[in-house]
Amino acid sequence: MAFLFKSDTRRGEVWRKRLRSEFPSLDFRVWPDVGDPSEIKYIACWVPPPDLGEAFPNLELVFSVGAGVDQIDLNLLPPGVKLLRMTEPGLAAGMNEYATLAVLAAHRNLPAYLDLQRAGAWKQLPTVAAKDRRVGVMGLGVLGTGLLESLKPFGFKLHGWSRSSKQIEGVTTFTGSDELARFLSQTDILVCLLPLTEDTRGILNTRTFDALPNDSCLINVGRGGHLVEKDLLGALASNKLRCAILDVTSTEPLPAHHPFWSHPKIILTPHVASVTDAEGSADFVATSLRRHFAKEALVGVVDTSRGY
Amino acid sequence: MAFLFKSDTRRGEVWRKRLRSEFPSLDFRVWPDVGDPSEIKYIACWVPPPDLGEAFPNLELVFSVGAGVDQIDLNLLPPGVKLLRMTEPGLAAGMNEYATLAVLAAHRNLPAYLDLQRAGAWKQLPTVAAKDRRVGVMGLGVLGTGLLESLKPFGFKLHGWSRSSKQIEGVTTFTGSDELARFLSQTDILVCLLPLTEDTRGILNTRTFDALPNDSCLINVGRGGHLVEKDLLGALASNKLRCAILDVTSTEPLPAHHPFWSHPKIILTPHVASVTDAEGSADFVATSLRRHFAKEALVGVVDTSRGY
Repeated sequence: MAFLFKSDTRRGEVWRKRLRSEFPSLDFRVWPDVGDPSEIKYIACWVPPPDLGEAFPNLELVFSVGAGVDQIDLNLLPPGVKLLRMTEPGLAAGMNEYATLAVLAAHRNLPAYLDLQRAGAWKQLPTVAAKDRRVGVMGLGVLGTGLLESLKPFGFKLHGWSRSSKQIEGVTTFTGSDELARFLSQTDILVCLLPLTEDTRGILNTRTFDALPNDSCLINVGRGGHLVEKDLLGALASNKLRCAILDVTSTEPLPAHHPFWSHPKIILTPHVASVTDAEGSADFVATSLRRHFAKEALVGVVDTSRGY
Repeated sequence: MAFLFKSDTRRGEVWRKRLRSEFPSLDFRVWPDVGDPSEIKYIACWVPPPDLGEAFPNLELVFSVGAGVDQIDLNLLPPGVKLLRMTEPGLAAGMNEYATLAVLAAHRNLPAYLDLQRAGAWKQLPTVAAKDRRVGVMGLGVLGTGLLESLKPFGFKLHGWSRSSKQIEGVTTFTGSDELARFLSQTDILVCLLPLTEDTRGILNTRTFDALPNDSCLINVGRGGHLVEKDLLGALASNKLRCAILDVTSTEPLPAHHPFWSHPKIILTPHVASVTDAEGSADFVATSLRRHFAKEALVGVVDTSRGY
């Protein structure tokens, strides 16, 4: 019985120690040293081995080392093999920090102040009280609801939108494509925390931006594929959007000379909002294996039909 | 009986309406239309009229329109005249937003990421979990304790330092100059929220920076006079400090060609962390007058011997 690890080495060392102490009979192997592939029952990876479907005849579980699974072609997953999204607490904590930082930065006009600093101009901009600022979060899973909780103490008006109906105390929620326009019309700071699926690809586009109030801000901490990049440039040029804070881009690393690098209204970070913690993710994997051996229900199993 | 208002007109209009409805016999006058100075019992100002000491023989209360009173020469205050600091909730809320934003920005390396963006470089920097990051707040008044409360949900290690001993749940506190070095040695992100007095002027200097761990961050939301600006430049050049986020400078507006404008490790905003809210401050003044008429204790009275 073997576990194949295909991700960064530092995290691998933490996992190896943790799994070895808890499951002494589990052979921990690090890609590309696969050994006999028929012994491999568990794989942890960001991008799976290319021949996932055929090479591992006794595969039972695949762990994504990140919160998303859009990097994995779900069609290549052999029938009966379960795919698990990472749901460790460090990942949610990191996203919470980053997204709260981004919302406060948008609320307090940080992109405009950075631009004034570059210009050497001391100029105070109008302020808006948090109670008069509407923050709308798209995606109400663990990360989206966590962010809304983090924003509550500041007194923002909080809105949420998701595919299926959700109730969150202190948050006005909207559901499905029918209520999207109504949600957007009441959102000054839009945060995308959706999973990337065929339904959500390109959802941040001109039509979406046009449905927002003037002078809104976009924060994309979902995936680069959610955003139609030229539509964002248009919305910033027309002042429909006041600023954007982006942690993800359609091509990563973002190519040199892409207009986002030097755009005065864009703050760009290199996909760092949320980083899987080595200890927390080792806990998650150990707990999942324990449950799997005991035939108990697993947390984070991806529904391949909806794509997350 | 007259009230002299010497501050921005928009706020003045809100105050005029509020005070007129509550105190119909109070004559609300706006600087420089003083009228008969002997009728003036109350003055609200940022910087007082130059002849405060002599021109208003029946003066009873002076309101600072901001949280600080360092812009007022306390020696010119006639005996028996009380000076009040503004303590309205909007002011604390604004400071909370800004300082939380600044702490999260320092924690998540935003200044370095902005510099990488300018350079067109996609590079992920090491992350530190909040539980391993020590935030130290200097000044434990309403604003400092409010900030510490705001930071609690993120899980930072929280430290506080003040002149007189304070107990705050979940915060390790340090008192007076004897414990300053010990406080600094355990602070990765230092936030200055002190009042500016003779004791605290220049407190952010090379000696203070040298007492911090390497790679620390400075956030100054107190007053420009707290910081020895050339010492900050030295500490950033030697990498003792990783970054600084400054809302205040020794001269405001900051002169053109000052090195802070273009410094890659400094985020600079033009004294906007906390802006007195027109409605909230009108409430504060109305409440204070009502108490003063009833000979009840006033909130925010400055102790001129300690300077805040």
